[in-house]
Amino acid sequence: MNEIAINDSVSSFIEWDSLLEKEVTFTGMVQNCRVSSWGGFLILRLPNYIVQCVMDRNSLNIKPEDIPVEGCVKVTGTVKASSIKDKAIHPNNCEIHVKNIEVLSSPSLEQLPVDTTKKELNVNIHTNFDKRPLTLRHPKEQAIFRISSVIFNEFGNFLTDNGFTRICSPKIVKTGAEGGANIFKLDYFGREAYLGQSPQFYKQMMVGVFGRVFEEAPVFRAEKHDTSRHLNEYISLDIEMMLENGFMDLIQIETRLLKHIFEKLKEKCSNEIALLGIEIPTVDKIVTVEFDEVHEIVFKETGKDYRGEKDLAPEEETLIGEYAKKNWNTELVFVTHYPTVKRPFYTMDDSTKEGRTLSYDLLFRGMEITTGGQRLNVYEDYLEKMKAFGLTTELFEGYLQVFQYGMPPHGGFGLGLERLTSLLCGLSNVKEASLFPRDINRLEP
Amino acid sequence: MNEIAINDSVSSFIEWDSLLEKEVTFTGMVQNCRVSSWGGFLILRLPNYIVQCVMDRNSLNIKPEDIPVEGCVKVTGTVKASSIKDKAIHPNNCEIHVKNIEVLSSPSLEQLPVDTTKKELNVNIHTNFDKRPLTLRHPKEQAIFRISSVIFNEFGNFLTDNGFTRICSPKIVKTGAEGGANIFKLDYFGREAYLGQSPQFYKQMMVGVFGRVFEEAPVFRAEKHDTSRHLNEYISLDIEMMLENGFMDLIQIETRLLKHIFEKLKEKCSNEIALLGIEIPTVDKIVTVEFDEVHEIVFKETGKDYRGEKDLAPEEETLIGEYAKKNWNTELVFVTHYPTVKRPFYTMDDSTKEGRTLSYDLLFRGMEITTGGQRLNVYEDYLEKMKAFGLTTELFEGYLQVFQYGMPPHGGFGLGLERLTSLLCGLSNVKEASLFPRDINRLEP
Repeated sequence: MNEIAINDSVSSFIEWDSLLEKEVTFTGMVQNCRVSSWGGFLILRLPNYIVQCVMDRNSLNIKPEDIPVEGCVKVTGTVKASSIKDKAIHPNNCEIHVKNIEVLSSPSLEQLPVDTTKKELNVNIHTNFDKRPLTLRHPKEQAIFRISSVIFNEFGNFLTDNGFTRICSPKIVKTGAEGGANIFKLDYFGREAYLGQSPQFYKQMMVGVFGRVFEEAPVFRAEKHDTSRHLNEYISLDIEMMLENGFMDLIQIETRLLKHIFEKLKEKCSNEIALLGIEIPTVDKIVTVEFDEVHEIVFKETGKDYRGEKDLAPEEETLIGEYAKKNWNTELVFVTHYPTVKRPFYTMDDSTKEGRTLSYDLLFRGMEITTGGQRLNVYEDYLEKMKAFGLTTELFEGYLQVFQYGMPPHGGFGLGLERLTSLLCGLSNVKEASLFPRDINRLEP
Repeated sequence: MNEIAINDSVSSFIEWDSLLEKEVTFTGMVQNCRVSSWGGFLILRLPNYIVQCVMDRNSLNIKPEDIPVEGCVKVTGTVKASSIKDKAIHPNNCEIHVKNIEVLSSPSLEQLPVDTTKKELNVNIHTNFDKRPLTLRHPKEQAIFRISSVIFNEFGNFLTDNGFTRICSPKIVKTGAEGGANIFKLDYFGREAYLGQSPQFYKQMMVGVFGRVFEEAPVFRAEKHDTSRHLNEYISLDIEMMLENGFMDLIQIETRLLKHIFEKLKEKCSNEIALLGIEIPTVDKIVTVEFDEVHEIVFKETGKDYRGEKDLAPEEETLIGEYAKKNWNTELVFVTHYPTVKRPFYTMDDSTKEGRTLSYDLLFRGMEITTGGQRLNVYEDYLEKMKAFGLTTELFEGYLQVFQYGMPPHGGFGLGLERLTSLLCGLSNVKEASLFPRDINRLEP
């Protein structure tokens, strides 16, 4: 038996400023090695930093040309003040003048299949995804997923601070929540089961327990279309809560949530934002517009007549996004009161507007990132609505029982992590915001 | 179009102390209604509180007997100082003297199938799981999942503060990471796919990118055994990191992580801990013991000779747990250097100990909660070890490519959320720590 003291030898962030003129030793991966006649620059990748090391041939134990890109090295050197322009390198106010470098491991390939040392990755999307363990090492790829990681974390932090309880609902389910054919089938010990399309039923059940709940977990959609807007597996950020002021409670909390996430991104990802050259919006008000009003605005602006249509065309979403930015000075638009026929059976109708629901889509930069709304909460209302929708209650017994036990007025929304990340980062394909995307043609790596 | 100001009408925790003698209005679910001749007590469930309301028949707009248990009510009343003994009620230093109660919704059933108003739930485990949306409303059930929620959140917070990046790896995969038969098959657009048994391969690949990564996500195990220790779907808390000091880095960070989680539980879940009558351990040192030493201790203590066996018997784990508590004053024991033949192919051998690995299990209260260790990081070492294990590399190409690109010395571990929760809460079955458990017989609700 050994008794060992707890220490923080492997902890935390490095306070570079306090290390100026001091000798340091650390391990990192070789992001790049720029050899020159006098020595060169070694760019090292550490857990939170991409550090510049200066190599002087005369005082180094190793030849710079013997340091392999994507090898792992242990370096010893002195921290010196510097002023670095390359946005991929941070900290940019200091560099390490190294005197000793030990190569701990090297790639087994003589030539890597993709060059990750250039300013741009410059590969097509298939190569990017095929060689993901390598291509993700490019600083711009890393930046996307550091941003995505902060969104995930801050979603949870904001909600926890606002009285929400995190739930973990099952992904192997007996009944799909969204209906339709886009559901993956599974053999569950000889029985037919499915992969959850959404935690909808479970988060509603849990509102009855905790009042306010959220979940951040994968969902699965067997979409057969290979588009730039869809993934077959993605992370759904879900909330569900008791409502006191109807669905405006949802719009308020979602706005505050996004405001919080955007502010944290500016604070925690300033390097990544600068490197990608992107802009994170400022949120200072709420803009809502009714579904039917969108058709009217589109008609007035373009002459295209979608009035009477029961859904928004993608073209309308793009257009209202541009219109909102120009006329209402916002990149976020809540479109409310979608038609009953286009919303799931659990959606509550607006008793004052025939055929319209207490639901909304949130458009960000002209693309839907959220669908939300108030849900039915009375058992008999479910029976009636399901009958009207031609649904049998049999399959939904496990879910419907909760409304027999009593449920408060409630609602919620879901936010796709990859879609939000891709819109923030200006990616042309949502798959680029997934570490290992899954689509109809892609199951690996 | 409507422009609306952002407000915090639906925000945050209630500062009860600042509301003393003030009138408040809020909405809650009826946890219990104890009617008496003079009026009675109404126990209301809010998102973060279980509040006691005092009803005086003479000054109330409604008869107490008309208030349905598990209905939703809007109450108005005055906050008064009080001293409440019932551990299920918090805050316990004030109560609401109500004057107006509006019933917003009621259960549709005249009698609920389970009584959640008693001190104990007192139902068998099958009823508990069948009626989950109701049984979870019992305060002791809620407490388990508030604790579980805090573990999940603080796992992420600690790691984020220590330079780890959160990753989201795919759950639909082409190859199982743990091998064997306990894997769920899936039809993926006509191709065979599987549900991830562990994020092992992906978290290793991502160490090459971010240096330190973690994931909190479901994993799926097609275990055919219905035991009190297994779930077919559970939440795996995973980390993987570059190592500077071998696998002791892992033991250090896991100890600090658990210390952090336990301290946060004491801080944030004091009501739940008191209600469940459980004890959260204090972590102030690390105790490690080698695998072979455990056999020796068991032999010396009981005369049972497991020496030469390549694994620990559950009986040995229990015994070493008791032994450690009594002799070493700890509930956490790291058992190190498991035999090579009992560890997956990616485990690194200890070059100084024939047939032993640089891996460990963490036992908590005599049960394994973690398996961790250093991994191979050189491509050729994988080829060699896989050959020795009789594995073909073909299936693992997507994974093995990363070692061709260069990988640092690294390792990691996985922690089962439900198992840790159940051990902390003293549950006899790990399924009780899952909101909606999945086992060979159970697929719903």
